[in-house]
Amino acid sequence: MSFEPDTLVYNEAGLIPAIAQDSETGEVLMMAWMNAESVRRTLESGRVTYWSRSRQAFWVKGESSGHVQELVEFRFDCDKDCVLVTVRQTGPACHTNRRSCFYTAVRDGEEVELMAPEH
Amino acid sequence: MSFEPDTLVYNEAGLIPAIAQDSETGEVLMMAWMNAESVRRTLESGRVTYWSRSRQAFWVKGESSGHVQELVEFRFDCDKDCVLVTVRQTGPACHTNRRSCFYTAVRDGEEVELMAPEH
Repeated sequence: MSFEPDTLVYNEAGLIPAIAQDSETGEVLMMAWMNAESVRRTLESGRVTYWSRSRQAFWVKGESSGHVQELVEFRFDCDKDCVLVTVRQTGPACHTNRRSCFYTAVRDGEEVELMAPEH
Repeated sequence: MSFEPDTLVYNEAGLIPAIAQDSETGEVLMMAWMNAESVRRTLESGRVTYWSRSRQAFWVKGESSGHVQELVEFRFDCDKDCVLVTVRQTGPACHTNRRSCFYTAVRDGEEVELMAPEH
């Protein structure tokens, strides 16, 4: 069955959450948002392309930082309302220069920092 | 620093996306939503507890199906607007009886089913 980006389920702002996972380590790197055109561009270009809610613009991940995400596989879930992209991540995924945005854990009620910024 | 569920960033409906990842295999299992009270209950009980948008009720994962998620680690991202729970998943995570909700990939423009329902 041929895939049509418009058949995914977008929220009232026309967006769908997209989880990026490292294709080799399995690490969850970040979550950001896509619209139908971001989905289309991601699939066509092989460069993961989000929609920046703050800038209200397409966001080719790494376009300014060089920390690009090369698409390995594009998946969506049973309800078609969430995307999972497995990627080859160049450099850190997080804008804080950490490998993953999920660098804070809660242990025994305390916030614990799991990784330091890369240099 | 002590963690307060209210310091996470919730959307206009009071919800935050929560990604569940298998703590052993690294597989991304599902994405659902939590409110501040779900976050509190998840941390206190060790049973991952979402907020069901369709039922408008707390959803202790596996409460009816038995496919529970035992919390291994609770993390949140740099913007505090997304949660990642690593879990020990009993049985399939997906309501279709598949291990993960992300069982459909897009390859060469075609939808490809990656895994079958478990029995």
